[in-house]
Amino acid sequence: MPKDIYGLESLDFFVFDIRYKADGKPLPVMKRRELAENYGFTQVKLFGEFAIEKAPAEITEIIRELGKTEHEGVVIKDPEMVLQPIKYTCSESNNADLRHAFRFYNDSGRDYMFPRVVREGFQSFEWNESEEELRERCLRLGESILRPMIQSIREVENNRRISEDVRIRVKNRDTIDRFRSYLERLGVDVVFSEPERVGDEYLVRINKVNQSTTDKTKSILEGQLWS
Amino acid sequence: MPKDIYGLESLDFFVFDIRYKADGKPLPVMKRRELAENYGFTQVKLFGEFAIEKAPAEITEIIRELGKTEHEGVVIKDPEMVLQPIKYTCSESNNADLRHAFRFYNDSGRDYMFPRVVREGFQSFEWNESEEELRERCLRLGESILRPMIQSIREVENNRRISEDVRIRVKNRDTIDRFRSYLERLGVDVVFSEPERVGDEYLVRINKVNQSTTDKTKSILEGQLWS
Repeated sequence: MPKDIYGLESLDFFVFDIRYKADGKPLPVMKRRELAENYGFTQVKLFGEFAIEKAPAEITEIIRELGKTEHEGVVIKDPEMVLQPIKYTCSESNNADLRHAFRFYNDSGRDYMFPRVVREGFQSFEWNESEEELRERCLRLGESILRPMIQSIREVENNRRISEDVRIRVKNRDTIDRFRSYLERLGVDVVFSEPERVGDEYLVRINKVNQSTTDKTKSILEGQLWS
Repeated sequence: MPKDIYGLESLDFFVFDIRYKADGKPLPVMKRRELAENYGFTQVKLFGEFAIEKAPAEITEIIRELGKTEHEGVVIKDPEMVLQPIKYTCSESNNADLRHAFRFYNDSGRDYMFPRVVREGFQSFEWNESEEELRERCLRLGESILRPMIQSIREVENNRRISEDVRIRVKNRDTIDRFRSYLERLGVDVVFSEPERVGDEYLVRINKVNQSTTDKTKSILEGQLWS
């Protein structure tokens, strides 16, 4: 989902891993960081290197802090890159994803929901939450699911279509037309704004209709049954 | 899910509809009730017959009352049986179903969840809930999902297997063995209690292991990733 929190004006490339071409083996984390830095590539923030027995407590603390600003979470890597990396997301980010998904509940709610809900359950268990913390988590989860859905139902009742706004920035005006035909070929229902000049780029706002959620909500409001 | 609220000791047959054999046309509701009563068949409770403009308010009231005792809900029928019947469930029953499903989240959580969650969203909209009512509904939903899941995680951590108890009553001891072989042929992992004599029947408790939830939880607790 779109996040405005990384301070990026436009797109950017990040180096996550560097691998040998022949056998696909990854460089150790610190070697990769050094190499990427020497060549001027952008990398994600390194929060630190932790001994394995201290890592759970340190990472829990980082996750709690990141959650406060709705950052997504961390990827935990073996410095030698032998063990598989582990992605660990903040509860706030899970909930932000759910809020986004449930606004378009019939387009993206179903499959999206289950893994995030399970993460919430395991995190509460791992953190050995108090009754009060668990209650807050349950409320947060319920609100992330129901509030955006109800907002969408209201909008359809007021004859609006459920849609989301996305923005793209391109260097070349031609790219806009080519992206539009690409989306139309995919059958996505989109409205493009007039391109706006920003620095040496064009900014285009795209309104994308979530047809499935709009239609389903309309049909239920008109008395059709769920199926 | 098993409900203990209908005051039944064992199984019972209920007549819901009576149809003509030749063309499948249903009898009007009142005719069906009369006929079934004359023949001594059990039927579900009739809450009343309502004019169409009064029905929404009356049924809302019934649903709120039924919810308090976790009854499932109502089936709304056209007296002439021309329009399709509509099943309308209580929020409390949706949540009871979710609590049951999320205890066995990896066996029954996924597909089970979505329609019930959507019902909660529409009911809140239909009832035009206050901020306080909506908050309570969100909390109820979140708790129905997370609490049973966390309980299951705790049980697996304590080396218990996630299982559910069901009971059957049979007239004939042979039926028990035949039911057991049937379940074993299906690959269901079950433990049968010793049959207990109750009146002219045998009561058997069956413990059914939810292998998928047990295994998945165990593997995550041992450090495997969700997939």
